Amino acid sequence: MKAAVLHAVGDLRLEERADPVAGPREVLIEIAVVGVCGSDVHYYEHGRIGPRVVRGPHVLGHEASGRVAALGEGASKHAVGDRVALEPGVPCGRCRECRSGRYNLCRDVKFLGAPPIDGAFRRFVALHEDFVFTLPDSVSDAAGALLEPLSVGLWACRRAGVTVGDRVLVTGAGPIGLLAVQAARASGAVEIAVTDLNPRRLELALRTGATVAGESVDFEADVLIECSGAPAALAAGLRALAPAGRAVIVAMGYDGETAVPLALLQGRELWLSGTFRYAGTYPDAISLAASGAVDLEAIVTGRVGLEDTEAALRAGREDPDSVKVLVTPR
Amino acid sequence: MKAAVLHAVGDLRLEERADPVAGPREVLIEIAVVGVCGSDVHYYEHGRIGPRVVRGPHVLGHEASGRVAALGEGASKHAVGDRVALEPGVPCGRCRECRSGRYNLCRDVKFLGAPPIDGAFRRFVALHEDFVFTLPDSVSDAAGALLEPLSVGLWACRRAGVTVGDRVLVTGAGPIGLLAVQAARASGAVEIAVTDLNPRRLELALRTGATVAGESVDFEADVLIECSGAPAALAAGLRALAPAGRAVIVAMGYDGETAVPLALLQGRELWLSGTFRYAGTYPDAISLAASGAVDLEAIVTGRVGLEDTEAALRAGREDPDSVKVLVTPR
Amino acid sequence: MKAAVLHAVGDLRLEERADPVAGPREVLIEIAVVGVCGSDVHYYEHGRIGPRVVRGPHVLGHEASGRVAALGEGASKHAVGDRVALEPGVPCGRCRECRSGRYNLCRDVKFLGAPPIDGAFRRFVALHEDFVFTLPDSVSDAAGALLEPLSVGLWACRRAGVTVGDRVLVTGAGPIGLLAVQAARASGAVEIAVTDLNPRRLELALRTGATVAGESVDFEADVLIECSGAPAALAAGLRALAPAGRAVIVAMGYDGETAVPLALLQGRELWLSGTFRYAGTYPDAISLAASGAVDLEAIVTGRVGLEDTEAALRAGREDPDSVKVLVTPR
Amino acid sequence: MKAAVLHAVGDLRLEERADPVAGPREVLIEIAVVGVCGSDVHYYEHGRIGPRVVRGPHVLGHEASGRVAALGEGASKHAVGDRVALEPGVPCGRCRECRSGRYNLCRDVKFLGAPPIDGAFRRFVALHEDFVFTLPDSVSDAAGALLEPLSVGLWACRRAGVTVGDRVLVTGAGPIGLLAVQAARASGAVEIAVTDLNPRRLELALRTGATVAGESVDFEADVLIECSGAPAALAAGLRALAPAGRAVIVAMGYDGETAVPLALLQGRELWLSGTFRYAGTYPDAISLAASGAVDLEAIVTGRVGLEDTEAALRAGREDPDSVKVLVTPR
Repeated sequence: MKAAVLHAVGDLRLEERADPVAGPREVLIEIAVVGVCGSDVHYYEHGRIGPRVVRGPHVLGHEASGRVAALGEGASKHAVGDRVALEPGVPCGRCRECRSGRYNLCRDVKFLGAPPIDGAFRRFVALHEDFVFTLPDSVSDAAGALLEPLSVGLWACRRAGVTVGDRVLVTGAGPIGLLAVQAARASGAVEIAVTDLNPRRLELALRTGATVAGESVDFEADVLIECSGAPAALAAGLRALAPAGRAVIVAMGYDGETAVPLALLQGRELWLSGTFRYAGTYPDAISLAASGAVDLEAIVTGRVGLEDTEAALRAGREDPDSVKVLVTPR
Repeated sequence: MKAAVLHAVGDLRLEERADPVAGPREVLIEIAVVGVCGSDVHYYEHGRIGPRVVRGPHVLGHEASGRVAALGEGASKHAVGDRVALEPGVPCGRCRECRSGRYNLCRDVKFLGAPPIDGAFRRFVALHEDFVFTLPDSVSDAAGALLEPLSVGLWACRRAGVTVGDRVLVTGAGPIGLLAVQAARASGAVEIAVTDLNPRRLELALRTGATVAGESVDFEADVLIECSGAPAALAAGLRALAPAGRAVIVAMGYDGETAVPLALLQGRELWLSGTFRYAGTYPDAISLAASGAVDLEAIVTGRVGLEDTEAALRAGREDPDSVKVLVTPR
Repeated sequence: MKAAVLHAVGDLRLEERADPVAGPREVLIEIAVVGVCGSDVHYYEHGRIGPRVVRGPHVLGHEASGRVAALGEGASKHAVGDRVALEPGVPCGRCRECRSGRYNLCRDVKFLGAPPIDGAFRRFVALHEDFVFTLPDSVSDAAGALLEPLSVGLWACRRAGVTVGDRVLVTGAGPIGLLAVQAARASGAVEIAVTDLNPRRLELALRTGATVAGESVDFEADVLIECSGAPAALAAGLRALAPAGRAVIVAMGYDGETAVPLALLQGRELWLSGTFRYAGTYPDAISLAASGAVDLEAIVTGRVGLEDTEAALRAGREDPDSVKVLVTPR
Repeated sequence: MKAAVLHAVGDLRLEERADPVAGPREVLIEIAVVGVCGSDVHYYEHGRIGPRVVRGPHVLGHEASGRVAALGEGASKHAVGDRVALEPGVPCGRCRECRSGRYNLCRDVKFLGAPPIDGAFRRFVALHEDFVFTLPDSVSDAAGALLEPLSVGLWACRRAGVTVGDRVLVTGAGPIGLLAVQAARASGAVEIAVTDLNPRRLELALRTGATVAGESVDFEADVLIECSGAPAALAAGLRALAPAGRAVIVAMGYDGETAVPLALLQGRELWLSGTFRYAGTYPDAISLAASGAVDLEAIVTGRVGLEDTEAALRAGREDPDSVKVLVTPR
């Protein structure tokens, strides 16, 4: 099969690889669509994300959908030909975090595309059947791939306790911010404000659920979802929170230490946290996509073949209006 | 002013009464619309609901909207002419329940229309300013009155923890059941099943958010909202719940003791509770109505003048397709 | 090895069995102590508990501690000779319930002593290493076995949300009720009332944490933990709950339907649920036993050898003051 | 009556004042004991705490107990002579925060000793009856006054969700840190670590519930309660938290912005918040004191008469081993 393999920073090559084989209780999936995520771009540009370092040839990609091509021994939950989405992280299922329903924090998780686990920029992937979800007809292959970033948005809403009637501020209107807007709307938020510097992204936010958008907004919020990576946006967002407000940081880039107005957290009893991936979101994400409560294709700005994966990884830097590019390995 | 006064079971008279005066921090409201609630009908037919007994002439009605006509001493949150909705229960603000955010359980609450407090089937009502909510232009007088039964549905959803992706079963498609459907949809429920015996009500449920409806349904639910008052519906609803499901009983009529399959509550670790009115729902209810997330007028099946209040109280018995009748006191 | 094998109702035989072998990631444990549980007695007397039926020779027993005798392939968390407690239920780790942190509700759980899985009334047991917990010196073998019923009490407290300052009513002072009292005290309950008909058990409750005890008590509670199996105790307990109180049914025996005063659940917005085993309690149970916050040996009323397992199973019926009998298979 | 009046920074004078009169539903209390709080010292030294500025003569003091001396019109919950504790903050009871059970965040709260409301360093105080709590005989006057700082500790534990089996790290062993230790122990924490630079305070922590104490500790915690005001302690405490840990900042002094390792909050999904006073804690605090679950007098290091209030305010600066000084106005 063909695979897009990262050899070094900025060095991605289309290569022939042996087809994987489905192990016990695994499903072999022929990949239909893979979304390009900011973390893929970060690995391509820097060779690492924090402690996770690319050592040797590596296949990126973790936002994926496809069709079941074969079943491993004991796999019984799918049939060959099923259209499916892949939940990319398979946890150990046994540790303290797994037992507590926080399997996203499992230290032994195997996550597609996070080194050293090869990801989905290739024709075939084998994955444990319990992390392969059959798609209804109303969810396209593209939408199936984007259940992954939608899960990030849903998890942010869940941890922040977004509930009916809440006023939500989303800072940053990249792919995650935009899907956080849709997740918040689907979770019952009625007023949703979005901040970003890019007017095209703000327009897109307004078309997909935001009620207010601008470089800055005058808005009192119950929940802040920080998707920009900008400490100034975080500080402004915290100041916008009403008493007992909740803030979650989703954006990458908060390495080292960041100046935070802690007296605000005290005086208004705000809660501040961050999210790491997601847990248990796929069934809900599928329901939302199937019902039309979210419109995942609305954020797609480009589609390319596997041979243009490198161009897709560069699109974000080269075109500020690019939001989400999809790669089709077949 | 004119008022519709209950003198005895089945004896409602249109009478002249002195206009009320706004006391300290109270607002005098000229009533625009009052919805007829099943509890009004129950008082009219039986003279009591449990421990609350009508003794002497009494004005019913607690689903109300209107216009501010005058301000009492110290009232500063409204202006004469403001269009407003009335939250009918004014709690003490001091007791254990009030301090805990459960003011609906305050024993010293003064609730419009619950004896001995006169209700809203009259031209003017005076109410504490903190329980009078200004309506945006996008919320009609009719919708303003129906924020009250919507609050019942929202509170049921909140106590049952309805959240994005949940599957909700509503048993009973009367006014409360229908608004529980809308509240559940607005709270993020994607699959909503409704059971009732009346096909017109089931149709209405499907038009306003239900995804499945019938005399009985084959449905696995995360949440049950019991609005029928029928023990058989409760038992069937409990059996439909997935592990860790939550059930709340909203319907009246569960006096005495009811047979409940407790082994189900144990084996699946279900939670069962009931709701009593609501707390803190009006701001959310207004947001939902203003944004179009709920359509309150969809359940209105009749409108009459104050002189026809008695006909309105009888409509439910005489016309099985009647859902919500509104009275206009002016 | 020797094992106490149930062949039919009332027919328990001491037999020779082949020693089990530790499979991959399993630990072979030489059993030190097994507690006799009411469910063991129920299987012995009736051959079934609800849908779980004893078919063919079966070994009971699931409250167990011991010493590591051998390690299976890949087992790395223990050393031969470690003193350990056994968490008897090993769930699948993958299903919706497992992923949500409710692994006690896993349908594919393998539970020691629940047919068809052989239990601990034998010299050796093999168990997955993740469900084997090393005991500190301050926790005796007897206490190690009783971490299991303590877990039942802790789970009841956790699901009922017992928190500092709560007033807790425990109905029924059998082994589970008595350990629920200790769990409630350790969870911060300050006032703990216990009801039972047996004065010796009430005395024991008072010695181990209860502040009030009697056949009935005049007590307002925030939490009810029903451990008697008597519907009248449940009804009385619900009436004793303050507004927003929580009730959990732990006792077995609520088959069929039970009359419940649902209007109470509505008017006071009580929550009612039941518990099924426990999840994630062992680390906490060990901490509590090690620190002296609970005294597990206080409920032990008898100790016998494996050859007297049948007498131990009969003790509860024959001696009303018997609370917890321990069996030592070595 | 005599009162200790602050006229300017460092200028406290014993003066004669007119006795207050109990207004409607108020209780007049003859003060028995007032504890000196760090915030009193801060007002004495700086004349302000953030936005709250002392303008004109002002009486400090808010940790108080006493005896009912007279009842205002309509006050019916106490009898003259009752021994009582004063919950010093009386909220409006009507605003969004009050309705939500977060009355500590009410903007219209009247708080004893916070300018411009005169506090308790005087012989008599009048307070709304609903914030006056009768003390059982087993709670001394000194303990009654210290229910206030205990409430701060209980609120920290409640907001951090301290529950049975938790491992709690308290940074800072001043009066609040020491009572946070006792509150954590009473809430079910089994392992409690404390850090401070003062060995006498660490000893006191170990005597009253801490299991580990030192300038720094090697400890994995589920909960951090930051009572030191030192950003380095906060950062170290956050690093000590296990995945899904919760941190609450109780200490004053976090003005401006503080460097926080946000990537930790993300990678481990920690929650960080602060507390502002407390809500609904007095009944629980009284239960704990009455039952002996906490020992409030253990932190008392000095007692003086009203004429020595200034010395009491200076004790903390002049004697590093001083923890809690009590003033007796009579």
